[in-house]
Amino acid sequence: MSLDAVLNRIDEQMPAATERLLQLLRIPSISTDPAYADHCQAAADWLVSDLQDLGIAAEKRDTPGHPMVVGHVAGTGPHLLFYGHYDVQPADPLDLWERAPFDPAVEPTPQGEVIRGRGASDDKGQLMTFVEACRAYKDVTGSLPCRITFFFEGEEESGSPSLVPFLKENTEELRADVALICDTGLFQSRTPAIVTMLRGLLGEELTITGPDKDLHSGLYGGLAMNPIRVLARILSDLHDDRGRVAVPGFYDGIPELDEAVRAQWAGLAFDHAAFLGEVGLAHPAGEADRTPLEMLWSRPTAEVNGIQGGYTGAGFKTVLPAKASAKVSFRLVQGQDPLRLRAAFRQFVRDRLPPDCSVEFTDHGASAASVMSTDAPAFEAARRALSEEWPEPAAYVGSGGSIPIAGHFKNILGTDAMLIGFGKEDDAIHSPNEKYDMESFHRGIRSWARILDALA
Amino acid sequence: MSLDAVLNRIDEQMPAATERLLQLLRIPSISTDPAYADHCQAAADWLVSDLQDLGIAAEKRDTPGHPMVVGHVAGTGPHLLFYGHYDVQPADPLDLWERAPFDPAVEPTPQGEVIRGRGASDDKGQLMTFVEACRAYKDVTGSLPCRITFFFEGEEESGSPSLVPFLKENTEELRADVALICDTGLFQSRTPAIVTMLRGLLGEELTITGPDKDLHSGLYGGLAMNPIRVLARILSDLHDDRGRVAVPGFYDGIPELDEAVRAQWAGLAFDHAAFLGEVGLAHPAGEADRTPLEMLWSRPTAEVNGIQGGYTGAGFKTVLPAKASAKVSFRLVQGQDPLRLRAAFRQFVRDRLPPDCSVEFTDHGASAASVMSTDAPAFEAARRALSEEWPEPAAYVGSGGSIPIAGHFKNILGTDAMLIGFGKEDDAIHSPNEKYDMESFHRGIRSWARILDALA
Repeated sequence: MSLDAVLNRIDEQMPAATERLLQLLRIPSISTDPAYADHCQAAADWLVSDLQDLGIAAEKRDTPGHPMVVGHVAGTGPHLLFYGHYDVQPADPLDLWERAPFDPAVEPTPQGEVIRGRGASDDKGQLMTFVEACRAYKDVTGSLPCRITFFFEGEEESGSPSLVPFLKENTEELRADVALICDTGLFQSRTPAIVTMLRGLLGEELTITGPDKDLHSGLYGGLAMNPIRVLARILSDLHDDRGRVAVPGFYDGIPELDEAVRAQWAGLAFDHAAFLGEVGLAHPAGEADRTPLEMLWSRPTAEVNGIQGGYTGAGFKTVLPAKASAKVSFRLVQGQDPLRLRAAFRQFVRDRLPPDCSVEFTDHGASAASVMSTDAPAFEAARRALSEEWPEPAAYVGSGGSIPIAGHFKNILGTDAMLIGFGKEDDAIHSPNEKYDMESFHRGIRSWARILDALA
Repeated sequence: MSLDAVLNRIDEQMPAATERLLQLLRIPSISTDPAYADHCQAAADWLVSDLQDLGIAAEKRDTPGHPMVVGHVAGTGPHLLFYGHYDVQPADPLDLWERAPFDPAVEPTPQGEVIRGRGASDDKGQLMTFVEACRAYKDVTGSLPCRITFFFEGEEESGSPSLVPFLKENTEELRADVALICDTGLFQSRTPAIVTMLRGLLGEELTITGPDKDLHSGLYGGLAMNPIRVLARILSDLHDDRGRVAVPGFYDGIPELDEAVRAQWAGLAFDHAAFLGEVGLAHPAGEADRTPLEMLWSRPTAEVNGIQGGYTGAGFKTVLPAKASAKVSFRLVQGQDPLRLRAAFRQFVRDRLPPDCSVEFTDHGASAASVMSTDAPAFEAARRALSEEWPEPAAYVGSGGSIPIAGHFKNILGTDAMLIGFGKEDDAIHSPNEKYDMESFHRGIRSWARILDALA
C-alpha cells in the first residue's frame, strides 16, 4: 500500500530532511527585534523556494510587518490549511548557550540525537515535519492526497500584529475544511497529543516615571519617590498570599472545568514534581486550591517577564532613577475578555500610583483563549493515526501556551483547528540550548503522513 | 595685604585654571567599571604632575585597586590634610547627555557660565578649587601658609575598598591637625555650608534564583515560581505604608535630633517643594512623621538603585526567568551599625524566600554615619572666611550623602574633618549633563584662599 511506501521514503530521506532543516535554522529570524527584519525576509524566501521545489504555487506576501508565506496545491479530498511560524525568539542570554544559537547541528546525547539551535523546536522543526511529509508523499505517489494550503507566519513570537488583518483580507483564499497547527508538544514527552484547550495571552509593558531625571540617592534619598519602589509595590500586589491574581474582576466569567475533562486529566497521571524537578523547582506556585494541570491549562496567570530600572551594570551606583519598567503578561482562559482585563490591569496600576508618579503603557497584544470541539470526525481520525505511529496512544490535552491562531482561524475563517505537535518538555524553547529530538522530527514527519492518509 | 594679592591672582588666572580642569575632566576615570582602570591611572598621573608643578613632593601610591595620590609640602602653621577624589560615576544613560560626558566645555547658560562634563562637580572641579588656591598662594607669596598634605582617592564612587587599609598603613604620614574634605555643596545653592552630619551607606546586591533555566511562561506559567515575583514582594515589603523601613531593628539606637540642631535647621527655611520641584516631584516620600530636612540629613533610608530580570529588550518575550536581581542601598545615621543592619537585611530577605528559591548576596560596602563636633576653633575660623566670600553667611548643615572618609579620618588618623564644598543642587551629579558653575569654581578657589589665610 502507498502509505508504507511513503513511510519508507521518509525513513530513507531523513539525512536530506535534516540538512534542509539545518539550513532554515541558520537564518536568525528573530521577529521581535527590528534589527533582524532582513533575516525574517530571508527565512520567508527560503520557505517559498522550498515549497516551489515541491511543485507548490507558493509566494511571499507582504504585510506591514514580516511577510507571510502562502502556498496552494490542488487535490481531491478535504481542503487542509497547514500553519506554522518561521520566526523565532531572541537568543539571549547568549553566554548560556553551549553552541552559537544560529549555528545548528545534530548532536548525540544519552537520550538519542537532537537537533540543537534556536527555533529547532519552536517552530521551524515542527513546521518542517509537515513539509517533509508532503515531500515524501509527492515523491512516492506523484501528488498530495488532499487539497492543501500552506500558511506560514513570521510574527508569532512578537504578538502577530499582521495576522488578523491578513486573515480578514484573504478569508476566501485561506478558508478550509480543517486547519492543522503544528506548534505544540507531546504530553509529558511521551504521549502524542491533540490540544483542545489553549490559553490566551495579554501582554502589557508599564513604565513608571518619578523624578524627571536620575538623582543621587544621597542628595535626594528619603525625600524623593523612587519609581522602582512604586513598581515593586504594584507587581507585589499582583498576587495575593494564596497565589490568586488580585486584579479586580480577573476571575469573573471563568467556568469550572467540565467533569468529563477533569476525569480525563486525572487519568493522565501528571507528575508535577517530576515536571518541576526538571527545571530545578518542586512546589506549585499558582492558586493554592487548584491542581497542577489546572494551573497550567485551565486557570489564568499573571507573570512578570521582564523588569528594569536604575543601574544594572557591574559594581554599584547610588542612583535614584527617573524610570522603572516591567513587561507583564497574563495567560487567559475561557470566559476572560482580554480587552476588559487590559483596562482592569491599567486601572489596578493607576490605583497604586503615588501622586508624584506617572505611568505609560505599551500594548503587546491580546488574544482570548480557545476551546476546540472534538466532535468533528477529523479529530478521531487524527488521534488514531497518531496512536499507530507512537508507542503510546494519543490523548486530548490542554496547553498552557497561547496559540491565538486557533481562535483566529475559527472566528475569521470559520475553520476548526487541530493542534498537533511533537515538541518535548526539555526542548528548552524560548531558552538557551533549544533543541528538537531527532525522534520528534522523524516520527513527526511519519505522523503527518499517516494523518494525511487518514484524512484523504 | 597678601590675601588680597592672592585673590587678585586667582581672578587673573581663571582662564588657565579652567583649562587645567577641562584637561582632568577629559580622562574617563570611572572607578566602578574595570574597563576604565587605565583611565583611573591616567587621572592619578595627571594630578601627580600638576602637584609637582606647584613644587609639591607628590607621588602615585599603588593599592590593590586604583592608586592614591599623596603629596606633601612643608610649612609653618597647622598641618592640614586635604582630601578629594579623582574618580567619577559611570556616565550612562549616554543618550540623555547633550554633549559627550568626557568632552567637557564651558557653556553659557541664563544663570551664568557652567563647566559641563562627568565629574565637573563630583569631584574633580571641587578638588581643583583647593589646588588652584594653593597655586595662587604660591605664585604670590612664594610658599604656602600652612603645612599641607594632599590626599586624592580614586575609588570613592565604588565603595573605597583600598581606603581603610591605606590609612592604616600610612597613619603617621597622613595624620594632621585638621582635615579638609571638598566633596559637598552649598546649602540650597546659595548659602556656603560646613557639613557637620553625614549619613553612612550600606550597599547590597541580591540575586534571587528560581528555576535553573529560563522557562517559557506558557508552558510553565502558573506552576513554576517566578523570581521576579519573589523579588518584587521583598522590595515592596522594604517600606511600610507610612514610609518607614520595615527591616526588623532598623531604627534601633537612633537618637532624636538635638533641640539646638533642630532649631538651627528650622532657621534654614528649607523649601522642600522647590527642592523637589526642580526634579519634577512635589511630595516628600520618606517617613510620614518627619520633616523634609530630617528625611534628608538625620533619618535613614532604603532605596533600590537598580533592578533587573527577564527580557528587557525591544518588543516582548514570554519568558519566565531563572534569576532576578536588585542593588539596594541604605543611608545610615548616628546610632546605626552597618554590619548589624547588613545581617538584618539578609535575614529579612531570607524570611521572604519561598522554598523553591535561593538568594545570593554581594557586599557593596558599609560605612557608618559621622557627626562632627564644631567646638574646634578651625570650624568658626572657616565659617567666618566663607561668610566673607559669599553673599550669604555660612551655615553648619547636614548632608544626606555618604562621605565615609570623614569617619575614617577620625577613627584611624584621629583627625577631625571639615567638609566644605561648593556644588549646587542642580549640578546633576551622578546624572546626565553634570555641570559645575563657574561661580562655584571661582568663589570656591577664593574661599580656600581665605580659609588657608584664616587657619595660618
